[in-house]
Amino acid sequence: MSDTWLATLITETPQEGFELAITLSRRGVKYTQPDVEVLHKLRPDYSNNADSLTAASQVIAINFQTIAAANNYWRK
Amino acid sequence: MSDTWLATLITETPQEGFELAITLSRRGVKYTQPDVEVLHKLRPDYSNNADSLTAASQVIAINFQTIAAANNYWRK
Amino acid sequence: MSDTWLATLITETPQEGFELAITLSRRGVKYTQPDVEVLHKLRPDYSNNADSLTAASQVIAINFQTIAAANNYWRK
Amino acid sequence: MSDTWLATLITETPQEGFELAITLSRRGVKYTQPDVEVLHKLRPDYSNNADSLTAASQVIAINFQTIAAANNYWRK
Amino acid sequence: MSDTWLATLITETPQEGFELAITLSRRGVKYTQPDVEVLHKLRPDYSNNADSLTAASQVIAINFQTIAAANNYWRK
Amino acid sequence: MSDTWLATLITETPQEGFELAITLSRRGVKYTQPDVEVLHKLRPDYSNNADSLTAASQVIAINFQTIAAANNYWRK
Repeated sequence: MSDTWLATLITETPQEGFELAITLSRRGVKYTQPDVEVLHKLRPDYSNNADSLTAASQVIAINFQTIAAANNYWRK
Repeated sequence: MSDTWLATLITETPQEGFELAITLSRRGVKYTQPDVEVLHKLRPDYSNNADSLTAASQVIAINFQTIAAANNYWRK
Repeated sequence: MSDTWLATLITETPQEGFELAITLSRRGVKYTQPDVEVLHKLRPDYSNNADSLTAASQVIAINFQTIAAANNYWRK
Repeated sequence: MSDTWLATLITETPQEGFELAITLSRRGVKYTQPDVEVLHKLRPDYSNNADSLTAASQVIAINFQTIAAANNYWRK
Repeated sequence: MSDTWLATLITETPQEGFELAITLSRRGVKYTQPDVEVLHKLRPDYSNNADSLTAASQVIAINFQTIAAANNYWRK
Repeated sequence: MSDTWLATLITETPQEGFELAITLSRRGVKYTQPDVEVLHKLRPDYSNNADSLTAASQVIAINFQTIAAANNYWRK
């Protein structure tokens, strides 16, 4: 992956930060399995499984910790 | 999801912070599986399974770390 | 849950902090499954399973990180 | 459990800190399953299972983070 | 492994930091199973399994926390 | 275990820090299962299983967070 997809961890709002956390979580998957077709086929496996969704939410939570710290928690 | 659901990480009390952590945890699921009907069908799967509930509590704990830090632990 | 159960993260001693971490971990479960009867029925499932107990201890450890930081690690 | 088992997070050395992390991890289990006989019976389940041992080591690692921070990483 | 593969945690950009997090995650595997042929054989097991990919992404997220902190979150 | 195996968290380089993180992860296992023969027998179980290797890498990542913080991320 030679394209630039992560130029900064700074976002305007916490919500954009949360969405960036989702991007990071997906990129972590995509670096491990770059074949988009395979990823597409796996989608029903986890999106219809409660424990898989909880696990996905956990990765997002961990990445959100990083992004929130980077943004000083968007304190004013 | 274009609505604003996360404008700030700051809450009045630790308990509100904990409840915001629950919101973040659920949003992490919902971004991955946006179909509310599917989510509804999955509910009995995890809400009646001890390990699934522990996993859910873990995601909340991780998000609560972020929110508690954002609020300087509500120290006076 | 409209009652106040978490007014502060500050405790007198590390041990009270650890016990508060247990409370947070249980509350994380209870917000997800509020039916006390269901929770009661699930108890034997995890309290007699080594991996479930390890998982429970992990959630407590994560919540204890938050509480210990809030209390500046009870340093004198 | 009304006895005092955690009076301080401060230890002389990193190794004592690591051992305290083990104590915290076990206490997390014991608060959830206080019956020592049950715990004794479960021992072979996890002590002979590679994944259970990795999971146990993870809880210790999380608690060690807390204790290491409390001790300012035993820097001189 | 006597070669030098980790001379610094500092990177130019967040994206390079994320890629270093992937390197750390793979090295963690490789120290545990140094046989490259075995690792090669295991590849299809996790790269075609949704939960395994989520787990891989989680390890990356944890290592990225470390690297992001090391780089002061690439704040300017 | 009465021998001294962890006198300091400080290392010369990040790579030595990573290797110390591996030591901590293994010690976490060994304190739980001190019988070296049992550990030896379990080795094939996890070293040939993709998910077990990811889990091992995760424990290393958590311990590396601690060690990296202790060393101020080896910033110059």
